[in-house]
Amino acid sequence: MKNIKQDSESTFHRRDLMKTSTILFGGLLLGGLGKSVYAKTNPSEIFKPLKENPLILNSNENSLGMSKKAHNAIIQRLPKAFRYLRYSSHSPRMELMDKIASMFKLTQDNITLGNGSSETIQAAIQALITEQKNTNVPVQLLIPELTFEFAELYAKPFNITITKIPFDSKMGIDIPKMKENAEAFKGFSIVYICNPNNPTGLITPAKYIDKWIKEAPKDRVFFIFDEAYGEYVDDKRFQSAIKWIPLKQENILVTKTFSKMYALAGLRIGYGVGSPKTIKKIRAFVELDNINALAAVAANASLEDKEFAKRSIQANATSRKILSDTLDELKIKYLPSQANFMFYQIKGNLKTFQKRMEDKHIIVGREFSPLSQWNRISLGVPAEMNAFTNELRNFRKKGWI
Amino acid sequence: MKNIKQDSESTFHRRDLMKTSTILFGGLLLGGLGKSVYAKTNPSEIFKPLKENPLILNSNENSLGMSKKAHNAIIQRLPKAFRYLRYSSHSPRMELMDKIASMFKLTQDNITLGNGSSETIQAAIQALITEQKNTNVPVQLLIPELTFEFAELYAKPFNITITKIPFDSKMGIDIPKMKENAEAFKGFSIVYICNPNNPTGLITPAKYIDKWIKEAPKDRVFFIFDEAYGEYVDDKRFQSAIKWIPLKQENILVTKTFSKMYALAGLRIGYGVGSPKTIKKIRAFVELDNINALAAVAANASLEDKEFAKRSIQANATSRKILSDTLDELKIKYLPSQANFMFYQIKGNLKTFQKRMEDKHIIVGREFSPLSQWNRISLGVPAEMNAFTNELRNFRKKGWI
Repeated sequence: MKNIKQDSESTFHRRDLMKTSTILFGGLLLGGLGKSVYAKTNPSEIFKPLKENPLILNSNENSLGMSKKAHNAIIQRLPKAFRYLRYSSHSPRMELMDKIASMFKLTQDNITLGNGSSETIQAAIQALITEQKNTNVPVQLLIPELTFEFAELYAKPFNITITKIPFDSKMGIDIPKMKENAEAFKGFSIVYICNPNNPTGLITPAKYIDKWIKEAPKDRVFFIFDEAYGEYVDDKRFQSAIKWIPLKQENILVTKTFSKMYALAGLRIGYGVGSPKTIKKIRAFVELDNINALAAVAANASLEDKEFAKRSIQANATSRKILSDTLDELKIKYLPSQANFMFYQIKGNLKTFQKRMEDKHIIVGREFSPLSQWNRISLGVPAEMNAFTNELRNFRKKGWI
Repeated sequence: MKNIKQDSESTFHRRDLMKTSTILFGGLLLGGLGKSVYAKTNPSEIFKPLKENPLILNSNENSLGMSKKAHNAIIQRLPKAFRYLRYSSHSPRMELMDKIASMFKLTQDNITLGNGSSETIQAAIQALITEQKNTNVPVQLLIPELTFEFAELYAKPFNITITKIPFDSKMGIDIPKMKENAEAFKGFSIVYICNPNNPTGLITPAKYIDKWIKEAPKDRVFFIFDEAYGEYVDDKRFQSAIKWIPLKQENILVTKTFSKMYALAGLRIGYGVGSPKTIKKIRAFVELDNINALAAVAANASLEDKEFAKRSIQANATSRKILSDTLDELKIKYLPSQANFMFYQIKGNLKTFQKRMEDKHIIVGREFSPLSQWNRISLGVPAEMNAFTNELRNFRKKGWI
């Protein structure tokens, strides 16, 4: 057994050195990207967490790293990075708008770019609240009891009502209960639905969502669908709400990001899709000159790299399988994730569990109150999942889980 | 005479090939940065505008390009760009907060980072308006008649009063008139002062500003000082309003950027300086996970590169001299710029002038209504200013200016 330093990011641990030639051959097959990416995605590799190089599984990042094409596009843009991104027709900003729009058979008027989907969610919340406040209509933000918290954080300074609806019996988002609440509210409801939801990883089936959209009064309910993890879903009951946009549905915004499948979290690039009227409203609250030039060229290059997207989804599916197999083996309860993280039940105190994992140089997810007996773990790449599941088995031997 | 392709950005034209050895020697003296930077800053070089490589002087960018140290820091960070920037103590985000704070002998509580100073201006405008609206106090944005327009654009969707005060007789910001207006306004005034002002390039002397700050009621007037171009000022009557922050002045925010002197416009990184109370209020409106990782490491490296800062200021001063000498020679009226652009009076129609310059592959500044007989030109590097001033002389020969 020997530790092999693969790159500046991570240290992998070979389970079997006899496999070296196969690994190299496999690496060549993967488009010449070399051992580094292959080692990360090879299900028989094991990452070795070290104090100076811990296994970070707490932020739903994609540790596969960005596409080589995105990497090269950034390097190529650097000499021009002293310039603002233009709004003129040939700029990377407009190229990106066009690419995204044509992906969904829409036009630039349907797209607003943002610093991650986070900025788009913020601008939407602010635009909707301000529009209603300007005419003295009461506004509420209507969200599931447990979800990605940015919508709530962005709404807070406006002193509006924030209503949280408990999960259904399977920890899914309770759409009928949310609908009931919106119908009873005397004012305007901004509904935020993260699909798949964070931290549960569960999808909300299209049939429930579609029914609500059809029946909701457009002047009293606005839907924000956060589909940051949509690319990872293989459950056929899920459908992206973007399908509603060509139908000229005015009260819907769908937000997407390059942070997950495309591994560009540190670059901050995402977007919103909606009707031209909605997008115009939101753009008034988006920062001028918002996205950075390197993110724009990286996103453009990523959209051209279909191979990378495939490999990214595949690596995540492999990691998901490694983890769910282990949890089954250890008889640990977990939710059937459709994202790049998994929510599973631990025994005893989460803080103790986190501390014990940290002692092994593994950083697991934070607490999602009130579910303090659950832990969210980012799936990482297969080599990382192998390290994590090995540690879970050790914990079981010690009676800690 | 021979055109020499210096780098992917620009083509320079040697005035005298006999100077080659001197140029190379000079290049070596400039810290090994090579001909490219030297050619840009050498006052005897002339940039050659081409259709495929025009001379872009319309956005107050710093065409010197970023510091080599910033460039290297970006390359080094790329393998980790799949990660979000952390808020923990050793992250580049916190390192940058610390560096900026210590530059002004302040603490992290005094600093809010933003995607360019633009995001900080936006968050401040939104935070201040929302705070007053939550208690039904009327709010106005009080600005000079001609200034950087983002503050106004960010305020517009809130339906507040926007009051514009005419310039004084020398096209300076009329502080006494603004003060009078704020005193008469029954409500809360957000005062936005860009210093030096854009597009005039003129400073507002500290003595006028200080008097107003001392006399203004803190609960009715809030000052935003945009000092994006502050580093270029050598007029002693200017003082950064940051001097007020250690004095615990609650009603002041100063915004700064890495887009100008540090040439990082495409990366989107800036900040605001204020009291802890002010900064806390503004942070609630700043996007979560806002700045990107590459901008953070580039900004950190830039702050360490004192040589670059010096060279950057020097190049701008040289360009300013080249332009003002030419304008003097041609007896063209201009304002004494303290920034990286200059506002000068043209004869006849601006659109015609812009078009004629464009025919020579030179992109000059847009119209700043109602001053349609003035043009704002970004100073660029000396080699670029030589090309522009040569064209001005040609225009004079043709009787166009």
